[in-house]
Amino acid sequence: MKLIKPLIRKANYYETDQMGIIHHSNYIRWFEEARVDFMEQVGFGYDKSVLKGIDFALTGLSCEYKSMVRFGETVQIKASITALTNARMYVTYEVRDYKTGELHTTGETRHCFWDSERKRPVSLKKALPELYNLFKNTMV
Amino acid sequence: MKLIKPLIRKANYYETDQMGIIHHSNYIRWFEEARVDFMEQVGFGYDKSVLKGIDFALTGLSCEYKSMVRFGETVQIKASITALTNARMYVTYEVRDYKTGELHTTGETRHCFWDSERKRPVSLKKALPELYNLFKNTMV
Amino acid sequence: MKLIKPLIRKANYYETDQMGIIHHSNYIRWFEEARVDFMEQVGFGYDKSVLKGIDFALTGLSCEYKSMVRFGETVQIKASITALTNARMYVTYEVRDYKTGELHTTGETRHCFWDSERKRPVSLKKALPELYNLFKNTMV
Amino acid sequence: MKLIKPLIRKANYYETDQMGIIHHSNYIRWFEEARVDFMEQVGFGYDKSVLKGIDFALTGLSCEYKSMVRFGETVQIKASITALTNARMYVTYEVRDYKTGELHTTGETRHCFWDSERKRPVSLKKALPELYNLFKNTMV
Repeated sequence: MKLIKPLIRKANYYETDQMGIIHHSNYIRWFEEARVDFMEQVGFGYDKSVLKGIDFALTGLSCEYKSMVRFGETVQIKASITALTNARMYVTYEVRDYKTGELHTTGETRHCFWDSERKRPVSLKKALPELYNLFKNTMV
Repeated sequence: MKLIKPLIRKANYYETDQMGIIHHSNYIRWFEEARVDFMEQVGFGYDKSVLKGIDFALTGLSCEYKSMVRFGETVQIKASITALTNARMYVTYEVRDYKTGELHTTGETRHCFWDSERKRPVSLKKALPELYNLFKNTMV
Repeated sequence: MKLIKPLIRKANYYETDQMGIIHHSNYIRWFEEARVDFMEQVGFGYDKSVLKGIDFALTGLSCEYKSMVRFGETVQIKASITALTNARMYVTYEVRDYKTGELHTTGETRHCFWDSERKRPVSLKKALPELYNLFKNTMV
Repeated sequence: MKLIKPLIRKANYYETDQMGIIHHSNYIRWFEEARVDFMEQVGFGYDKSVLKGIDFALTGLSCEYKSMVRFGETVQIKASITALTNARMYVTYEVRDYKTGELHTTGETRHCFWDSERKRPVSLKKALPELYNLFKNTMV
């Protein structure tokens, strides 16, 4: 089993809003950063899968806000695949303070696999079995 | 009952991503635009409620992506309060093509009311009964 | 001569930063909105020029900040072509308060015309004389 | 003399636009990231200067685009103070490819020092001589 490390990053000034906290829309972008990093750690970058003709269409997402992040704080963002079928994938996220481990945000993104040439859903297991197995290998 | 009109806006070039579509994180921002516009139509702007010491803390959100929006397309974003208690509010959203009415995205944001002075949850009904009633009046 | 009207838009909550003002990077995006609107008013949308094989590569920009814009304020953004040669175009911008006319920001973007097929600079006058003349017609 | 290291960071997917390149507005945000990192390397973080009552009001900026950055590429962003008077500071930036050193973007931001309490310009040399000297010490 492949262990995936959380992405470490700082909260940027331009990500704050007038409440003095990171604007809620930015966590959705942080999830994407963690997802991209996840694929690199798996050894099959997002670019590579696109080159092979597979996109990860986003079909839905959710996010729960527990406590706020402020400018200059360092967070760790953990992405985990929680469900993987031939056609679909669920990824969950936890954003925590890097130092204290305090939980800031949890979230989920839902994806289906998409043939970027023929513009239709595709079975990842058939189209890219190597990536399918690499993904499976990160799941408990 | 007060009828709330959808917000009309164009998809901006800087909101696209390399797939040639509006990046999914921007819909979360569009929801906020529609929420702010909703409050103005109600006759009690977001600024005013903050001045009165009440914030709308975001506790969670979700978004479902049905079909893509592209640069230059005009969308209508309908916000509706679907639940309102003393302490909490749920708002749902529909993003549709302005011309065809095609449904692009649905979503929900969940809020609790927050005393911006004393930094604790507050009953909107007690703290700002006028706004509570204006909100109630938009619900079917 | 074609008179171009300023773009009217509101400053969004998600565009603020923790200083309680619109973050400086957003004005660059507002310039783009005004530029896109300019082309629509001219009668030759940005999409159409891309379809005809011409891109407006951005080669440089500048921005001067005079006074701040806050959430909820309405601004007018005036775009004007100040220089147009076969190969290059300069556009200047003024962001003003919609009500008072107070000047918030001035800026400039510099573009060259680009053949999107052959990936090389191109003469707009030769490649799209219609658009070249429409642009010329907005200049004093 | 204190040597400041460039900031290393990856270009994010959500920073791309439909041309398949990083949208030009994001470089302005990258400059800010490099500026914040610069201050941390100097040993006097942006937060600390705000706590001491000094803001760095942005009065202007410029950016020149030489070649494009694409999703997944790693860049190095070098910030340098090129002018420092009692009341003003100029910072220049170079964005280069991390591997090849290819120059992508150059830029400049112009700042004045601002008393965040009394809302008026202030002499950094008088108000925060320690920071003034730390800044001076990075200049050739």
